[in-house]
Amino acid sequence: SRSINLAVIPGDGIGQEVVAQGLKVLRAVLPQDVKLETREFDFGARRYHATGETLTDADVEALKQHDAILLGAIGDPSVPSGVLERGFLLKLRFLFDHYVNLRPSRLLPGVATPLAGQPEIDFIVVREGTEGPYTGNGGSIRTGTPHEVATEVSVNTAFGVERVVRDAFARAQARPRKKLTLVHKNNVLAYAGHLWTNIFNKVAKEFPDVTTDYLHVDAATIFLVTDPARFDVIVTDNLFGDIITDLAAAVSGGIGVAASGNINPSGAFPSMFEPVHGSAPDIAGQGKADPSATILSVALLLRHLGYDAEAARIEAAVSEDLAARGDSVRTTDEIGDALAVRVAG
Amino acid sequence: SRSINLAVIPGDGIGQEVVAQGLKVLRAVLPQDVKLETREFDFGARRYHATGETLTDADVEALKQHDAILLGAIGDPSVPSGVLERGFLLKLRFLFDHYVNLRPSRLLPGVATPLAGQPEIDFIVVREGTEGPYTGNGGSIRTGTPHEVATEVSVNTAFGVERVVRDAFARAQARPRKKLTLVHKNNVLAYAGHLWTNIFNKVAKEFPDVTTDYLHVDAATIFLVTDPARFDVIVTDNLFGDIITDLAAAVSGGIGVAASGNINPSGAFPSMFEPVHGSAPDIAGQGKADPSATILSVALLLRHLGYDAEAARIEAAVSEDLAARGDSVRTTDEIGDALAVRVAG
Ligand SMILES: CC(C)[C@H](C(=O)O)[C@@H](O)C(=O)O
Ligand SMILES: CC(C)[C@H](C(=O)O)[C@@H](O)C(=O)O
Repeated sequence: SRSINLAVIPGDGIGQEVVAQGLKVLRAVLPQDVKLETREFDFGARRYHATGETLTDADVEALKQHDAILLGAIGDPSVPSGVLERGFLLKLRFLFDHYVNLRPSRLLPGVATPLAGQPEIDFIVVREGTEGPYTGNGGSIRTGTPHEVATEVSVNTAFGVERVVRDAFARAQARPRKKLTLVHKNNVLAYAGHLWTNIFNKVAKEFPDVTTDYLHVDAATIFLVTDPARFDVIVTDNLFGDIITDLAAAVSGGIGVAASGNINPSGAFPSMFEPVHGSAPDIAGQGKADPSATILSVALLLRHLGYDAEAARIEAAVSEDLAARGDSVRTTDEIGDALAVRVAG
Repeated sequence: SRSINLAVIPGDGIGQEVVAQGLKVLRAVLPQDVKLETREFDFGARRYHATGETLTDADVEALKQHDAILLGAIGDPSVPSGVLERGFLLKLRFLFDHYVNLRPSRLLPGVATPLAGQPEIDFIVVREGTEGPYTGNGGSIRTGTPHEVATEVSVNTAFGVERVVRDAFARAQARPRKKLTLVHKNNVLAYAGHLWTNIFNKVAKEFPDVTTDYLHVDAATIFLVTDPARFDVIVTDNLFGDIITDLAAAVSGGIGVAASGNINPSGAFPSMFEPVHGSAPDIAGQGKADPSATILSVALLLRHLGYDAEAARIEAAVSEDLAARGDSVRTTDEIGDALAVRVAG
């Protein structure tokens, strides 16, 4: 018999509320014979305030014992900016070698977009998750004086770039349009850009049926608002991926429906799935948060674990639910209930 | 009697065509008593192919003899990516210490935007122009092997950040809404982010009437498409500024109308004014390019040199022209003629 051993991290703010709905839909969609075991972890602002801890060695060992991780949101204004982000979120991405940060963007029927003319949007971004300017490789001298110099080092390796580029080519090849766009800034960031471009061109030879394309990151933001239909799969560096996926989420229905996976394709460590949105403390505890992004993240989680049919059922349910919702204002719980019914039906 | 000694760099592709219109409008708007002297420089792809040069020491000395520089566009597919960008454009920004990269975004009446609902857009971005990841401070080892490591170093100094932040506060203070937003990624790029945030908060105390705000760059891209009206003045680092100003141009009427100034406020070196768009080789020589962005860059140039009334006349003319243009397709030359008539009238 099959089983899923899931680590659950509700986290801060609306994280609690949306994760509850994610689990509700997960339970509703799983076949009877699949045994779901969950263990909840208390990472986030409360734990930090109580103990000063963000993620201990023991936590990491405990998380490792799971097949996957479902995360709500981490972050609170009561904690200095960066402490939880670097001490928990990024730390985990690096420790668990989540080198594929997968972020699909699909504008579903009936969903509002800030763009005029309701364009076709259906692409995925494969953002590198373990290198680039995110390595924490910086420093400062004469800190706090008029002579301070602060640096940040973007670290890029052939090993790190090739594995994520290869993953993106495989994803592009599996899609009908088979098109992959590299986004970088190789005219300015010459060393990193050269590495990315060379490896991209080299790996392209192994995927002759995939059409390739290159855009500078600044130009990519233009096309994301003027012609998002041109994108099928995008592969890009950690920081550029961070920036363009927020923009992509905004144009394809907002962060209320943007899902993401922090994936270690080798399976050496559990992968982590989370909505792109944050903890939204301003609306926390009010039942106002849209759990769709978390529920779509559960679909990515299921697909990662090989439950393709169940993942597709969730995606179809969210799509139908959004198309049918009309103008009614629903609570977090009501949306979760409606989706649980749809996936079970 | 007054005079303007202008260096003119038409450059590549449509650069030639749009600069001709910029000069036409400049001549039309200047009062009789102002003597305009221009010297044309042949930088760009042709010069590079002919001589291998992008910008020599002698060129730099010659450019220094001018009050300002008007640039069309530099870049051509026949030249490897980055050669002209780094060998000319960025080299000049660094040599002439163009630390204020000024990029206004205004959605003018009658101008199409990809955003639904024709939002109010009227903000300026003050992009740092001489530091950050643009310093060319990177390298690679084991280049071209499976063990390559490539780095890019973002260099940020208290001196460099403070002067541009101060400039942005002064610009915000001079505008009716008096609001300044710092855009960075201080939760991840901790050292540079700390420097920027600290200096921003310190300088803010000297401008108590300016409302301040902070956004991570990823969140800023969301607001640029969902609520661009929230922005008045933005100050940001060189790379973030590059990215968000292309997006800003896209939402506020496209790069056909996006102007920019590479400014050295001290006047120690001539400032350079250029459209945000590139050389667009695909439409070069066909009279299809919109010269409005270049003409608006001439307005920024005039304001920089103290010709405020003339700058305002150009801006009003472009605004009226766009509002009145209807559906007619006009050539580059026709738009330039129409604007020359309006500013002279
Ligand atoms: C919270 C932050 C560290 C994170 C990132 O920059 O990666 C977030 O913006 C994201 O995109 O997941
Ligand atoms: C051409 C390139 C070097 C330049 C930049 O990155 O600054 C351009 O994109 C710009 O915004 O002026």
